[in-house]
Amino acid sequence: MQFQKVIIGIDPGTNVMGYGILGVNRKQASMIAMGVIELNKFEHHYMRLKRIYDRVLMLVEQYLPDEMAIEAPFFGKNVQSMLKLGRAQGVAMAAALARDVPITEYEPRKIKMAITGNGAASKEQVREMLRRILNIPDENMLPQLDATDALAAALCHHYESSRPTVDKGCSSWKEFIAKNPGRIK
Amino acid sequence: MQFQKVIIGIDPGTNVMGYGILGVNRKQASMIAMGVIELNKFEHHYMRLKRIYDRVLMLVEQYLPDEMAIEAPFFGKNVQSMLKLGRAQGVAMAAALARDVPITEYEPRKIKMAITGNGAASKEQVREMLRRILNIPDENMLPQLDATDALAAALCHHYESSRPTVDKGCSSWKEFIAKNPGRIK
Repeated sequence: MQFQKVIIGIDPGTNVMGYGILGVNRKQASMIAMGVIELNKFEHHYMRLKRIYDRVLMLVEQYLPDEMAIEAPFFGKNVQSMLKLGRAQGVAMAAALARDVPITEYEPRKIKMAITGNGAASKEQVREMLRRILNIPDENMLPQLDATDALAAALCHHYESSRPTVDKGCSSWKEFIAKNPGRIK
Repeated sequence: MQFQKVIIGIDPGTNVMGYGILGVNRKQASMIAMGVIELNKFEHHYMRLKRIYDRVLMLVEQYLPDEMAIEAPFFGKNVQSMLKLGRAQGVAMAAALARDVPITEYEPRKIKMAITGNGAASKEQVREMLRRILNIPDENMLPQLDATDALAAALCHHYESSRPTVDKGCSSWKEFIAKNPGRIK
């Protein structure tokens, strides 16, 4: 099946990295694939980073996404864990940048809000909403919440990028009039 | 000139990234190149990351280093700056991992100690010692301390990797005797 746009969603982590591939046709989104990259089996930090880079590059070359959406928490427990998370994000981003795929990042709360209408929703609630919105048959659902989180990032990006520009609001009447010359009689 | 081993040193930053290329022949090290990758001109974060990835990959393909040494502070001011630094390190590492170049990281203090004998040395002192050790002519010296810092990481790695194994010390007499059978009469 051909899609007008393909979005890859990534939920980076240092133990497990989730990914989801979303196809869009006439604003109708559907799941192409989702999965996880297991990193626990690699003891060495660099082996994990290499695995992330190789697998994300493989996904980019296989599905040729037009855009990448990445779940990116801006706050963490401590500087140590943030440095590690930053590296994991960095190598995943490098795989997209290497093929000129533009990246947009979203905070977890924003993704939850976009999918469930509740920024404090649980990962299970996000998965359930995704299943319904995208009509995913039970046999194609994955139990790993990292995979559904990544797919949710892709769907959130689809919602955000397909919003009409006027929705972004105008900060002043002057701006509104300039943007909508026909609306003022 | 042919070298037995080429080491690329990287001092990653989000504003300026330094690099130094070191050639080794029979334990004698010499500078092949050093420089900086200016990132200030790029306003957008992803443009900076892409620039780092592209330029480090270019250096790896041009100089075909056998190993990469990276200056990696483990402690930072706050989680925000560590996340950004982690991303910059991540994309630089991805460029090395993409070409199967093994990476070793060194804390700034360890590099200063290896080059000057003082872990609290200033960047200027490190530069001056480098100039003397590697016999770098004045016209080849760069004023940017990020470049000399990166070259220092490469030289530190050369020292560390060419140390004889016995230097690493023995944790017990039993181990010492086993390792040095001729030393005990």
